[in-house]
Amino acid sequence: MKISAAVVFRSDKAKEAKELVEKINEHIEIRQICEARSEKVDEKCDFAIIIGGDGTVLKAVKNLNIPIVGFKAGRIGFLAYYKLEEVDRFLRDLQEGRLVEEKRWMVKVQLDGAQFHGVNDIVFHTPSRQMSEFDVLFDGCSGLSFFADGILVSTPTGSTAYNLSLGGAIVIPNSDVIQILPIAPYYLQNRSIIVPSHRKTFIRTLRECEVLVDGLSVGSTLQIEITKSERYFTLLRPDYYDFFTVLKEKVGYGRGVHNEMDNR
Amino acid sequence: MKISAAVVFRSDKAKEAKELVEKINEHIEIRQICEARSEKVDEKCDFAIIIGGDGTVLKAVKNLNIPIVGFKAGRIGFLAYYKLEEVDRFLRDLQEGRLVEEKRWMVKVQLDGAQFHGVNDIVFHTPSRQMSEFDVLFDGCSGLSFFADGILVSTPTGSTAYNLSLGGAIVIPNSDVIQILPIAPYYLQNRSIIVPSHRKTFIRTLRECEVLVDGLSVGSTLQIEITKSERYFTLLRPDYYDFFTVLKEKVGYGRGVHNEMDNR
Repeated sequence: MKISAAVVFRSDKAKEAKELVEKINEHIEIRQICEARSEKVDEKCDFAIIIGGDGTVLKAVKNLNIPIVGFKAGRIGFLAYYKLEEVDRFLRDLQEGRLVEEKRWMVKVQLDGAQFHGVNDIVFHTPSRQMSEFDVLFDGCSGLSFFADGILVSTPTGSTAYNLSLGGAIVIPNSDVIQILPIAPYYLQNRSIIVPSHRKTFIRTLRECEVLVDGLSVGSTLQIEITKSERYFTLLRPDYYDFFTVLKEKVGYGRGVHNEMDNR
Repeated sequence: MKISAAVVFRSDKAKEAKELVEKINEHIEIRQICEARSEKVDEKCDFAIIIGGDGTVLKAVKNLNIPIVGFKAGRIGFLAYYKLEEVDRFLRDLQEGRLVEEKRWMVKVQLDGAQFHGVNDIVFHTPSRQMSEFDVLFDGCSGLSFFADGILVSTPTGSTAYNLSLGGAIVIPNSDVIQILPIAPYYLQNRSIIVPSHRKTFIRTLRECEVLVDGLSVGSTLQIEITKSERYFTLLRPDYYDFFTVLKEKVGYGRGVHNEMDNR
């Protein structure tokens, strides 16, 4: 039986999606081609091909329970292991059985009775970059306080997203910890704190703050609770291409000096 | 039956040790009083009292398989939860059953056939702050390269030691991850990377480098392997006094703004 897939593309990548389908449909039964977030993806497919950047993958995985393969224009992404021009390599990897599943866990934020699941991170911040005192409590008891613009809570997957821009540590994907980072803190406290993911993180403040889940606003409130989500998503990646490869290629971290010398 | 303890003191704290024993020996059977590292501690005692700073505790735990309670002159330490003048509080906590055991895991470094166990960290660095290319490999395959003075590998316990000075993240004690931080890296790569502790970290370089375990030199070599140690140690701490309390009191991290306002 032929392997089956759905193709989900970012609205500006319709042409690229069509071209990709033409290249692969001899080998893969394409059951559905749709724009990201436009309609429900057929979950009886073996996997979904996502065309776009990490952002498109981020949105797509929230509505999907099947493994995903990301294709990206330009450089590879942390969630999209193939460039659009690498379709042949993808087909070869698929035929040679070199695609491995990588499970990634998500976080859940609860506010005022509603709950949302995040792949990368939760931001809890004041409007207009004002400051506020934030209390961060773990399992309802002891904790820390920060006078800051906000607090970022990130998963290992999210450690290379906004967390990286704010100065946080890089956490490799299968680590079972969350990272908490005050955003623009007063008192030189711009270090992150790493906490086991089974702990419940409660954040409260005195000024109404906005909650962003993977960069999208979901509401404003005075307190939120963050736990490990029961949901996860599955990336399909080539077995020769892991997190460290992407870290070196995309961010240049840990690339050393020899690579640069080789390129001269 | 009376609870029993050994008292281990740093060489300059003999007077303080004597005074402490006088205060507690009505309640605790003191089976041994000795200088740190001077003789083997009687492990049939229920616990050991360590008098000195975090450094004394660091050395003492390597030769002990019984729980320890640290007493420190001046401010509390991350491994010594009582100040020397707080003996009454300690006795009250003991009698009220408020001392809880906190297990801490250690790392093991292997070099040229020898192995050493570290509570805080392993430093692998060039002599005289020269630079070298360091390859950091995980489970023998993929990894990262840094052009730097050296590499620091720390446990959660060690995250608030040298790692803190070098700009690393704070890792709460029961997290199951190690932290790897290039020391004085070239190319703006001064972020740490967080890796599950079950992974084997192999570090190699082209220039002979010194290996420090908890700050003490154990030799020089071209490559080391770091794994989670099968050894651990046990701290006794009051149940109302956890890692976050110490972090706020000792480092000022997460103390917020209200404490300072209260003190005005």
